[in-house]
Amino acid sequence: MKYLYLFLLISYTTCAQQINIDKLSLMPWPQNIRLHDGTFQITKDFNINITGNPNPRIYSYATRFLRRLDGRTGNFFTQSYTTSSNQKPNAQLQINCLQQGKIDISQDESYQLKITPKNITIDATSDLGAMHALETLLQLLTVQDGQFVFPALTINDAPQFTWRGLMIDVARHFQPIEVITRNIDAMAALKLNIFHWHLTDDQGWRVEIKSLPQLTKQASDGLFYTQEDIKYIVNYAAERGIMVIPEIDVPGHATAILTAIPEIGSFYNKDKTIKTYTLERNAGIFDPTLDPTNPKTYIILQQIFDEVCALFPFNYFHIGGDENEGKDWDANPKIAAFKKEHQLKTNHDLQTYFNMKLLKILQTNNKEVMGWEEIMTPNMSKNAIIHSWRGVNEGLHAGESLINAAKSGYKTVLSNGFYIDLALGIDEHYNVMLIDEKANLTTEEKSRILGGEATMWGELVTPATIDSRIWPRTAAIAERLWSNSTITDVDFMRKRIVNVSFRLEELGVQHIKNKSVLLRNIANNQDIHALDVLSKVCEPLKIYTRNKEGTEYQSYSPFTLFADACTPDAEDAFIFEKRTTNYIKNKSPENTQALIYYFDLWIQNHEELKLLSTNAPLIQPLLPVSQNLSDIANEFKRILTQQQKINKEQLTKLLAKCESKNHADIELAVSPSLKKLLGSL
Amino acid sequence: MKYLYLFLLISYTTCAQQINIDKLSLMPWPQNIRLHDGTFQITKDFNINITGNPNPRIYSYATRFLRRLDGRTGNFFTQSYTTSSNQKPNAQLQINCLQQGKIDISQDESYQLKITPKNITIDATSDLGAMHALETLLQLLTVQDGQFVFPALTINDAPQFTWRGLMIDVARHFQPIEVITRNIDAMAALKLNIFHWHLTDDQGWRVEIKSLPQLTKQASDGLFYTQEDIKYIVNYAAERGIMVIPEIDVPGHATAILTAIPEIGSFYNKDKTIKTYTLERNAGIFDPTLDPTNPKTYIILQQIFDEVCALFPFNYFHIGGDENEGKDWDANPKIAAFKKEHQLKTNHDLQTYFNMKLLKILQTNNKEVMGWEEIMTPNMSKNAIIHSWRGVNEGLHAGESLINAAKSGYKTVLSNGFYIDLALGIDEHYNVMLIDEKANLTTEEKSRILGGEATMWGELVTPATIDSRIWPRTAAIAERLWSNSTITDVDFMRKRIVNVSFRLEELGVQHIKNKSVLLRNIANNQDIHALDVLSKVCEPLKIYTRNKEGTEYQSYSPFTLFADACTPDAEDAFIFEKRTTNYIKNKSPENTQALIYYFDLWIQNHEELKLLSTNAPLIQPLLPVSQNLSDIANEFKRILTQQQKINKEQLTKLLAKCESKNHADIELAVSPSLKKLLGSL
Repeated sequence: MKYLYLFLLISYTTCAQQINIDKLSLMPWPQNIRLHDGTFQITKDFNINITGNPNPRIYSYATRFLRRLDGRTGNFFTQSYTTSSNQKPNAQLQINCLQQGKIDISQDESYQLKITPKNITIDATSDLGAMHALETLLQLLTVQDGQFVFPALTINDAPQFTWRGLMIDVARHFQPIEVITRNIDAMAALKLNIFHWHLTDDQGWRVEIKSLPQLTKQASDGLFYTQEDIKYIVNYAAERGIMVIPEIDVPGHATAILTAIPEIGSFYNKDKTIKTYTLERNAGIFDPTLDPTNPKTYIILQQIFDEVCALFPFNYFHIGGDENEGKDWDANPKIAAFKKEHQLKTNHDLQTYFNMKLLKILQTNNKEVMGWEEIMTPNMSKNAIIHSWRGVNEGLHAGESLINAAKSGYKTVLSNGFYIDLALGIDEHYNVMLIDEKANLTTEEKSRILGGEATMWGELVTPATIDSRIWPRTAAIAERLWSNSTITDVDFMRKRIVNVSFRLEELGVQHIKNKSVLLRNIANNQDIHALDVLSKVCEPLKIYTRNKEGTEYQSYSPFTLFADACTPDAEDAFIFEKRTTNYIKNKSPENTQALIYYFDLWIQNHEELKLLSTNAPLIQPLLPVSQNLSDIANEFKRILTQQQKINKEQLTKLLAKCESKNHADIELAVSPSLKKLLGSL
Repeated sequence: MKYLYLFLLISYTTCAQQINIDKLSLMPWPQNIRLHDGTFQITKDFNINITGNPNPRIYSYATRFLRRLDGRTGNFFTQSYTTSSNQKPNAQLQINCLQQGKIDISQDESYQLKITPKNITIDATSDLGAMHALETLLQLLTVQDGQFVFPALTINDAPQFTWRGLMIDVARHFQPIEVITRNIDAMAALKLNIFHWHLTDDQGWRVEIKSLPQLTKQASDGLFYTQEDIKYIVNYAAERGIMVIPEIDVPGHATAILTAIPEIGSFYNKDKTIKTYTLERNAGIFDPTLDPTNPKTYIILQQIFDEVCALFPFNYFHIGGDENEGKDWDANPKIAAFKKEHQLKTNHDLQTYFNMKLLKILQTNNKEVMGWEEIMTPNMSKNAIIHSWRGVNEGLHAGESLINAAKSGYKTVLSNGFYIDLALGIDEHYNVMLIDEKANLTTEEKSRILGGEATMWGELVTPATIDSRIWPRTAAIAERLWSNSTITDVDFMRKRIVNVSFRLEELGVQHIKNKSVLLRNIANNQDIHALDVLSKVCEPLKIYTRNKEGTEYQSYSPFTLFADACTPDAEDAFIFEKRTTNYIKNKSPENTQALIYYFDLWIQNHEELKLLSTNAPLIQPLLPVSQNLSDIANEFKRILTQQQKINKEQLTKLLAKCESKNHADIELAVSPSLKKLLGSL
C-alpha cells in the first residue's frame, strides 16, 4: 500500500511537470515548437515590459492582452496599462521589437516566444510578430494542479503565406460596425492579416461618397458606412496588424449604383428613355451592368475611386469584375456599334477596355488593382492581383485560375475552396492545398501565390448569425494559410478548434451565444434543451441548395429559423460517426451501448419537441425531421438490442426519409453514418 | 362517453376562444383594457397602412415592427417596407396619427389599439402614441391552438408620468455606441422616453469637445464619443420617440476635466504651482473640484456647454452638481478670500454663485437647467428641474427632496429608489410610489412631479454585463412610471416580466446570453450546468457592499467573475421562497418533496462543482458558498425525511455560514428562506 501511494505520487508529480504537446490548443499551429520542463505560474504580479523600436500599436495591444488574461484568470493584475518602452525593466513578460511594422503584405511577421518557469520573452522583428506572439501566448494558457499556467517552451514561428484574408460581403446584408470590429478582433486572434470588404453589390451601396450622396441615399436603405466609420475601421484593423482592402464591384453587380445613377447603365430602352433600376431584394446574378462606352461612367467611377482610395491608405484596391454576363451589352445597339468601332470582338474585350480605364484611375491614386479572376485578360497589368474563385461549382477544376495566374506572371490569391458561405464542413476547407504539387510550378511561380481568403457572402446572414458562419471554420483556413503544409491532421485540428472557438467569445464574437437566442425565439421562451439536442445533428442546407433560385428568401426575410441556428459541423453527428465506425469494427457491448445512447436520446427528444411545439409554432416544421430520426433510431435500437430481426427494406425506407432535404432548410447530418450502419448489418 | 367527449370539445372550443387577461405579458400595464371574443390570426399577408399626418419616423418604426413580428412568427410577410401614407388602404393593420409628435416632455402620447378577428387599428394623436401602440401589439403576441395570434381587445392607454427615464453612466466604464443603441431600443419597447447620458466624471471625459481636444486626448483613455457619434445617438433615440439629456457633471466629480485642464482646479499648492491631476481608477467621492472663483473656469465651461448644447436639440441640460464636499475649496485661501469678498457664507452659497453663472450660459443656448437635488438653492430659477436622488443611504427620508422641490415650485424627477446599480430586488423599485399621499400635495404641486429615472451608475459594469444590471428590472420601473398607481401586484408583475425580458433579446439586449458567456469563461469551457444552478440562488452583493471602500476594484479590474454573472432576483431563490412558505403552512408530502427537490439539487450540484473546479480555477472561490449550501441542504433533508432529529444549534451554525457575505462578492439568496424554515421547525 505504501508503495502504491508512492507510485501514485510520482506519477502525479511527473504529470504535473509535463504538459503534453497534444493538449495545446494552438491554432494556427506554429512552425516550430519545443516543450521544456516546468511551467510559468500566473500571479497578480504578472506584468509586461516593451523594448526596442515598435509601432506604438503594440502598447494598446499588450494592454488588451493583459485585460484578456486577467479576465480569464481573475488575478487582478496590478499593472493597469502598458505604455512607452522599458518602463518596467524587471517585468515577467519582456517584449522586444527591432523595428516598426508596416501594414502591408510581404512583411516579416516572425517571432520567437520563450517561456521558462521564471519569465517570458517575445522577440520579434516588429510589432506585427509581437502581436502574433501575444495571441500564441494566450492560446497557451493551461490549467495544471488547479492553477493557470503557461507551459515552458520555445516557439519559433512565421507565416507560410503572406495573404491571409477574410472577405465580408456587407452588400447583401448590411453588417453594422460592431460586427466588423469583433470579427477583426477574431481575425487577429487567428493571425489573419487581410480584411477584404465587399462594399457594393446589386442589393446595396454601403459606403458614403460625399460627391455622390445619391448613392447611399437611394441605394442603401439607410444602411451604410459614413467615411468616418470607414476611417474608424481602417484604423481599428491597422491597430491589430490588419490591412483593409475595399471592393467596389464593377461593371456587373451594379444594380445599386444604377438605382442611384441610372444614366450610366447599359440597358437599352427602345424609346430611348433611361431605365429605372431598383435595389435587388433577391439573390443571384443580375443583368444591370455599367455602360463601358459612356464617358460619364468613367467620370462617376473616378469620383468614387478617388474618394474610396483616400479612405484606405494601403496599396490595393479590389474592382470585383466578376460574373458580368453581358446581356445588357449584347442587347444595346449603341454598345455593339462602339465595339465595332474600337475593334473589340467580344464582351471580354470590352471588359478589358473598361478595366484599362479603371487601371489608370487607380494608378493616379497609387493603388495596385485586384480583381476576381475574370479580370485576367491579355492586357491586364502584371502588377494586378488575380483573385481565384471559380471551381467545380462553376464547371472548372478547383482553383485552376490560381495556377494559370501564377504561370502567367500574376500575383494571385485563392478563394476557391474557402467559400465559407457554402455551409460545408470544416474538412472541406482545411484540406485545400494552395500549392498543387502536380502543377509543377517553379519557385518563382510558387512565390506568386500570395495566400488565400475565406469569403463570407452575405445573402443568408444577418448580424445575429454571421459570426457562426465565419467561426470557428475560418480558424482552420487561417491555419492552412499560416502553418506548414505538413500540418494536415484533421482530428488534431478538430480537437484544438473547440478551445479556439470558445476563446473567441472573449472578443465579443457571438457565434456561440446567439445560437441560444435563436433557439429561445423558436421555442417561444420554453426550455431550449430539446431544440439544442436536435440542432447537434442538423446542418443548414449546403452549396446554395438553401434559397435555391434566389427568390425564396428576400433580404428582409426572417433569418430566425432553425436552419439559421444550426451550423456546419454538427457536434453530435461527428461523435456519432466515430461511434458508428467503432461499432462496425467491433460490435462489443460498449460500442453497442454507445450507439443506443444516441437512439434513446433522439427518441426521447422527439417526444419533448412535440410537447414544446404546442406552444411554439416555429418548432412544428421541425417535427418531420425529428420524427424521421426518432423512427429510425427506434428501429435500430430494437435491432441492436436483438428485440427484433433486421428488416432491411423497412430500414432503407426510413433512411430515405432521413436523407430527405425537404424540411425546414436543414439536413440530418447523421444520415451518412446511419447509412453506413445499415450497410454493416 | 359521448357526453364526456362533447363536454371536452365544448371546453376546448371555449378555451380556444378566450384568452385570459392574466396570461397577457403586457408591461407597462395599460390604463384600460377590454378583452373581446376571438383572435386575429397572423398570416403571410399581414401588412400595414399608415394614414394621417405623422412624423416620418413612424414608417421606419413600423418596418422594424414588421421585421420583429416576422422574426418571431417566421411568416415571411410579403410586405417588405412601410413607406408613405396610405399606400395599402386595405391593409390589416391601420395606423392613423393626427399630427407629428414632438420629442419633448408633456406631449400627448396616448393611443387606442383595437384588435378584432379581422383587422387591427391604431389611433393616436401622433406617431409617439402610435409607436407605443406597436410595442403593446408586439407584447400581445400569443400562441393559441399552435398558431400565433393577437387576442381581440380594445386598449386605451396613456402614461401616468411624462418623464420616464433611464440614466447610463458612461464615465466610470465607457459603453460603446452599440450598448447605447440596444438599450435605447429596449427603452422604447418599455415606453421609456428619456435617455439621460452621464457623460463625464472623475474616471473619464467621454464627449469630444472640438475646441478643447485635450479633454478626450488626456482624460478618456481613448474611450469617448465623437460629435458624429453623439449626433447618431440623438437621432437614433429621436427616431424611437426618446429625448436625450446630456449631463456634464460640475463643479465636483471633476478629476477628468482637471486632468486635461488643471488650471481651473481648486487645489491649493503652497508653492503656487498648478496641481497635476490624473484620471481616477477607483470608485467613490473625490476632492478634485472646479474653481468657481477663477474666470477661466467659466470661459472653459462656456466652450464646453456651447458645443454640447448644439449637439442636443432638446430643451434640457443636466449640470450634475452633486456630491461636492468642498474640501479643496476650504483649503484654498484664495477661494476663502473670494467668498469673503462676495459675502458668500457657505460653500453652498459659493455653489449657488457658480450655478447662477452656468444658468446664464445655458440661457443663451435656450436650455433649461436640470441638476441633482443639491442645485436647489434659494436663487435657483424656478424653470430648473430638480433631480431627487438622496434617501435612506444618505441619512435622509426616501426622496424627501422630491416633495420639497414640488412644494417649492420646482419641477422634479425622482431617482431615489430607482438606483438599479444597488443590485436590489425588483420589488424594491416597483414598490416606490412617486406621489406620497401622506405629503398632502396640492394638484399643482403633484403636477410638478414629472416622473422618474432609473440610474445605472457604471463603477461595476462593463459592456458585457451592463444589460443584465439594467434589464429586466428597469421594465418594472417603466411600469411604475407609465401605469396607474393602482397597478401594484408584485406577483403579477413578476409573472409578466419573464416574457418581457425574453423578448428584449430580439432587440440585441445581451442580459440573458452574456450570462452563459461569463459562466463558460469561469468553467474554462466545461459544462456550465452546475454553475448555472448555483447562480440561480446567488446574487451579487448589494448597496455598495461590493467594492466597499471603492479601492478593491479599479476600472480595469476583471469583471468576469461569478458575481458579474449573477443578477438580482435570483430565479430559484424566488421559487424556493414560495415552496418554503407553502411548507410552513402545510407540511404535506408534496410540499416536503418540493423542498427536498432543491436540497438534492444543491447537494449533487456541489459534487459537480468540485469536479469542475479541478480544471477551472475561477470556480474555486465559489466552493465555500456551494459547500455551505450543500451542508445545510443535507441537514434539512435528513430532518424533513425524518432520518434525523432536529438539531437547532447545528442548523443555526450552518445558517450563519450561509448568511456570510465573505465569499466571491455574492450572497446566498435563499438564506432568508432557510432561516424561515429553521424558525418553523
